[in-house]
Amino acid sequence: MPDVRLSLAQAEDLVAEVLEANGASRAAARATAAALVAAEADGQAAHGLSRVSSYALQARSGKVNGTAVPVLTRPAPAVVRVDAGLGFAYPAIDLAIEALVPTARAQGIALAAIHHSHHFGQVGAHAERLAAAGLVALVFGNTPKAMAFYGGRAPMLGTNPLAFAAPLPQGDAPLVIDLALSVAARGKIVAAQKANKKIPDSWAVDAEGQPTTDPTAALAGTLAPIGGAKGGALALMVEILGAALTAGAFGWEATSFFEPQGKAPDMGHLFIAIDPGPASGNAFGARMTVLAEAMRADPAVRLPGSRRLAARQLATQQGLHIPDALHAEIRTLLQP
Amino acid sequence: MPDVRLSLAQAEDLVAEVLEANGASRAAARATAAALVAAEADGQAAHGLSRVSSYALQARSGKVNGTAVPVLTRPAPAVVRVDAGLGFAYPAIDLAIEALVPTARAQGIALAAIHHSHHFGQVGAHAERLAAAGLVALVFGNTPKAMAFYGGRAPMLGTNPLAFAAPLPQGDAPLVIDLALSVAARGKIVAAQKANKKIPDSWAVDAEGQPTTDPTAALAGTLAPIGGAKGGALALMVEILGAALTAGAFGWEATSFFEPQGKAPDMGHLFIAIDPGPASGNAFGARMTVLAEAMRADPAVRLPGSRRLAARQLATQQGLHIPDALHAEIRTLLQP
Repeated sequence: MPDVRLSLAQAEDLVAEVLEANGASRAAARATAAALVAAEADGQAAHGLSRVSSYALQARSGKVNGTAVPVLTRPAPAVVRVDAGLGFAYPAIDLAIEALVPTARAQGIALAAIHHSHHFGQVGAHAERLAAAGLVALVFGNTPKAMAFYGGRAPMLGTNPLAFAAPLPQGDAPLVIDLALSVAARGKIVAAQKANKKIPDSWAVDAEGQPTTDPTAALAGTLAPIGGAKGGALALMVEILGAALTAGAFGWEATSFFEPQGKAPDMGHLFIAIDPGPASGNAFGARMTVLAEAMRADPAVRLPGSRRLAARQLATQQGLHIPDALHAEIRTLLQP
Repeated sequence: MPDVRLSLAQAEDLVAEVLEANGASRAAARATAAALVAAEADGQAAHGLSRVSSYALQARSGKVNGTAVPVLTRPAPAVVRVDAGLGFAYPAIDLAIEALVPTARAQGIALAAIHHSHHFGQVGAHAERLAAAGLVALVFGNTPKAMAFYGGRAPMLGTNPLAFAAPLPQGDAPLVIDLALSVAARGKIVAAQKANKKIPDSWAVDAEGQPTTDPTAALAGTLAPIGGAKGGALALMVEILGAALTAGAFGWEATSFFEPQGKAPDMGHLFIAIDPGPASGNAFGARMTVLAEAMRADPAVRLPGSRRLAARQLATQQGLHIPDALHAEIRTLLQP
C-alpha cells in the first residue's frame, strides 16, 4: 500500500491544523493531536490517526465542544475532579495528571475523576505518564455499549478498558498494561465483515445470545467478555468505576464516538495514582527489581508494554507511515 | 452425607476454641473464627471451615504466629500500613478496615497496605465491609505460585484474587465482585484427581505448556489465566499491587497455606477505599440506582454478590451443615 511518511512533529502539526480548522481551540487541538499521534507511534492505530476524521467532524457539528476549557476542583484533600466541558478528553486528562502527581506524593494516594468527557484513546499512555513520574497508576473508563450484562443479551456495557502502570527501577521505561475486557475489539469484527471473512466463535454472540462466526450477526449481538462470568463481572466493575463514580454516562446512555452528529457522549474516566514509597515502606523499587529479574530470566516472557515501546522508538527515528488514503482523508478536512 | 448442624455462633466458638488450643491468642482466634465461619455461611467452603485444620497446625508449629498483634502506622495522610506480624490475616484486616473508613471519608480516597500476613480468605467479604460503610472498595492480593508469567511455563504468580464492592442505594446490600484470575481454582483440579476424573482442557497446561485434561499433569504444570494474555496481564497487575506495593512475598517466594511446617508465607494485601461523594459530585447514589434498575429489568441478569447473600441468609436462619468427617477432624484439634 502506498503511504506518506511524516515525522511525529509533522503529523502533530497536521492533526492540530485539521482540528483547529474544524473549530477546536489551539490548546485543545494541540493536546488532542499529541495524544492521537502518540497512539499511532505506539502501534495503536485504532486510537491514532484513524480517529482524526470523526474527531474533526464532531468538533464541526458541536457534538464535541472543541473550545471547552477543562475545569479542576478539589472536593477532598486526595481527590481532584475535572469537568471536561463536553470537549475532547485529552486537555482534561493533561490537567488531571498534572494535579495528580503532586497530590499523590503529598497524600500517598490520589484520585482524579473526569466527567463531561469524550473518547480517552490509548489508556495505557495516560497510566504510563503517571508511572514515569514514579507513581503506580490505575485508569478505568467505559465506552459506548457493546457487551451485555453477564447473563443478558442486549448491549449495555462498554468494552471497558483499564490500564495499569508501574515504574521499573534503573531507568527502565514503566511496565504498562492496557486492555479492554472484551475478547476482541469491535473494529476487528467490522474489518472481518468488510473482508467477508468469518470470525472465531469466541468473539461475540448474536442477538439470541448464541456464539456466532458471522460478523454481521455478531455486530447485531454483543461482544463476549474475556473469561465468561469473571470478565463480565470485571466489565461491570469498570463501568461502575469509570461511569458511576465519575458521574459519566453508562455504556447504554453514551452516544457514538464515530457518528458526526448527535448529543455528546458525556464519558467519565477514573484515575488512581499511588506513591509506592509510603505503601511499601520504601521497598517497592527493590521488589520490582526482583520481579523484573524473574520475568527477564525466561526469554519466552515479555514485560508488558515493551512491544509498544519498540514501535515508539522506530516511529521516533523513522516517522510514521500513513496510508495514502488516510492521509488524503485527513487533508480534505483542512478545508471544511 | 451425614452432617452436624451448628449455629453460626456455635461454629465460631468451636473454631476459636480450636485455634486457641493450638496457640493462638484469644483476639486472633476470635477474628479468624469469625472470618472462616462467615465464608462458610456465604457458601465459600474453600475459604471456610476446610481451613481450620491447616490454620491450627500452622499456629501449633509457629509457621503462623498465633499471638501476633498487628501494628498500624500512617506513613502518609491517606495511607495506613499494617504489619500483621506473620500472624493470621484477619486481625490485621480488621485493623486496616477500621482505619480506612474514617481516612477515606476525610481524604476522599485511602489505601491500606498489609504485610507480613497470611491467607486472606474470602476477599469479597473484606470489600463488602467497606461498601457497607458507604465506600467503594478494591482489594488485591496474591497467593502462592500457581500460574506462569504469560508466555512462560513455570508456576510463578498466584491465582491472584481481587474484589470490588460498591454500596447500592435504598438499603440494599452492597454489590460485591470477588474472583481469582485463574479459569478454575486449584482445589477443583485436586478434587478431580481424587475422583479420578478428567478436567476441561481450558483449566490448566502441563509442565510443557500444553493444555491437558489430566489433573495430575495439570498439577505438575500451571493454571491457565482467564482470557489468555489479558488475564495473564491482570494476574501480573494483582501480583504487583498485592505483593510489590505492600512489600509482601511474590507467588514464587510464598510458602504453602496448607503445609503445617516451614517458614511463614509472608503475604501482602492491598486495600483501596473511595468515598464516592467527592469523586462523583455526589451523583454516585443516583447513578447506582440507574444501574441497578437497568440490571434488574432483565430477569436473566444477576447483581454480583446476591447468591452469597442468599446463602448467608439461609445459614443465619438454619445454621451450618458441616460434614461429619470435617466436624470430627476439627474436634480432634481441640486436644493438640
